[in-house]
Amino acid sequence: MRVVITGAAGFLGSRLSRAILDWGALVDAKGRRRDVRELVLVDVVRSALDDARVTPIEGNLDDRRVIDAAITRATDSVFHLAAVVSAQAEADFDLGMRVNVDATRALLDRCRQCAAPPKVVFASSLAVFGGALADPVPDDAAVTPQSSYGTQKAIGELLVADMSRKGFIDGRSLRLPTIVVRPGKPNKAASSFASGIMREPLAGVDAICPVAAHTRMWIQSPRAVIGNFLVGHDAEASRLPTTRAINVPGICVGVGDMVDALRRVAGDDVASRVRWEYDAAIDRIVSTWPARFDAAAGRALGMRADDDFESIVRAHLEEVRPV
Amino acid sequence: MRVVITGAAGFLGSRLSRAILDWGALVDAKGRRRDVRELVLVDVVRSALDDARVTPIEGNLDDRRVIDAAITRATDSVFHLAAVVSAQAEADFDLGMRVNVDATRALLDRCRQCAAPPKVVFASSLAVFGGALADPVPDDAAVTPQSSYGTQKAIGELLVADMSRKGFIDGRSLRLPTIVVRPGKPNKAASSFASGIMREPLAGVDAICPVAAHTRMWIQSPRAVIGNFLVGHDAEASRLPTTRAINVPGICVGVGDMVDALRRVAGDDVASRVRWEYDAAIDRIVSTWPARFDAAAGRALGMRADDDFESIVRAHLEEVRPV
Repeated sequence: MRVVITGAAGFLGSRLSRAILDWGALVDAKGRRRDVRELVLVDVVRSALDDARVTPIEGNLDDRRVIDAAITRATDSVFHLAAVVSAQAEADFDLGMRVNVDATRALLDRCRQCAAPPKVVFASSLAVFGGALADPVPDDAAVTPQSSYGTQKAIGELLVADMSRKGFIDGRSLRLPTIVVRPGKPNKAASSFASGIMREPLAGVDAICPVAAHTRMWIQSPRAVIGNFLVGHDAEASRLPTTRAINVPGICVGVGDMVDALRRVAGDDVASRVRWEYDAAIDRIVSTWPARFDAAAGRALGMRADDDFESIVRAHLEEVRPV
Repeated sequence: MRVVITGAAGFLGSRLSRAILDWGALVDAKGRRRDVRELVLVDVVRSALDDARVTPIEGNLDDRRVIDAAITRATDSVFHLAAVVSAQAEADFDLGMRVNVDATRALLDRCRQCAAPPKVVFASSLAVFGGALADPVPDDAAVTPQSSYGTQKAIGELLVADMSRKGFIDGRSLRLPTIVVRPGKPNKAASSFASGIMREPLAGVDAICPVAAHTRMWIQSPRAVIGNFLVGHDAEASRLPTTRAINVPGICVGVGDMVDALRRVAGDDVASRVRWEYDAAIDRIVSTWPARFDAAAGRALGMRADDDFESIVRAHLEEVRPV
């Protein structure tokens, strides 16, 4: 297998890279489990992964030459993770369109040059939904984005579905829950705070929570999402809906309950480092996202949710403070 | 009002042009009824309309200069009708993307240069739907296109909705029924036969019906659709759904019943000129389109359906054989 990951230097991309190298094999479009012989890692910063199978490509996906270098006739699979995140896409409409729509389309177009239609795993988002929706959101709910990020991901999904139908690619769009706890620094995702209010207090730093305690979110740990990426990739096309879009399983947690779980795991002092400072701009985006999904189709494929939020916090703590 | 129509030389575009000139006024984005002082008619062939208010622009919308010439700071309203039709978009994926997606996006982008966000009426289609759907299709049904044409129109709708939300335009997407009886020659729309099996026999010519008699379609006459375009344009933004998409009312008719209506209006000899020759490629596209819609939102705005199919045939006959 020759596998490409875009956004490979990011938090999810780098974890996915390591997981694929560790696991060593993936199921191709013909249903055969094959060894990964080459892993092409594309990002604006060069991958630091030291493995003979890795081919790093440094560059921006809005440069057509970068896409042409990454995807060749021999490419079997593409994980397309590179994106402009939610709050940034809302603040800079044109940047979001350029990266989330144009680069995605150029990448999918390039896949038509492959010897056989490659598997494409498109990292989509629950932000394709918004407004009044059933609770839990059924798998066949109408896509009604209420942010530019969600709109751009919805356009990507439409392209993945139609190009799969045409036989240009064998695509699947995974609508990811909000991932908590992301390590590192806050980013420009509107959901960034959800990791921040865990990560920063555990590191002895104050963190701001910009939404109300009763705000609920659809959450998944980094570990679970990587597993679900691999399940989503390996799934046979015949088991996917015609939309090729899967709501990835998660757990529904209130933001106040997240902080309570933090308190139980790490104590009052840590939990008291969360400062509640309401930010209407962030809340306006986050509150349009549904907080609970049926996700039956994803579970039927073998995707999994975390057991509960406390175990997510504990797993994060084990990672950052190894014993 | 300074009004732009793309695809102005087409069948719908030319009727819409005449209707707007006859009517003389439209309701602007601020709710004021204003006289139409300039009507910019854009198409690959020059408009032949002789009216002092008309500014013809000859050119292809995939030429950015044509869009720049058509839409100026002073533009108040745009009717975007230009498109590659269904069977052609299915046969030539890249052409469909270039015209139906890229030109639509360039046109919407250009609207950001207007002094005030212009009204944009985007001619969408019931082809954004497909597959298993409730009958009748409710207004909030999930968009699930199963053709490249439907996919491209769905992408246009997403852009219209998000750019309206951002305040760049005041958009509305009208999902048109299949329009019968179109005059002139067959085109590359998969639905072209539905007009052909009326128009040709009435003109003494044989016509092929490529789908089964029991196939049902969602139909509207040219006269009704032009009225609904004007209603859709004039509607206040606050009365539109957040998707900005409206299922235009129509009537549900079986193809066999269409031919029976033709028989009642014009006699056995005329109706017997319809030859039933099944074409799997056409039927595959047409049969994914739903044939009946609730269309309550459109009716609430004041849009109307025809009374019955027979009256559509009679109206066509009156037009082509004026007494």
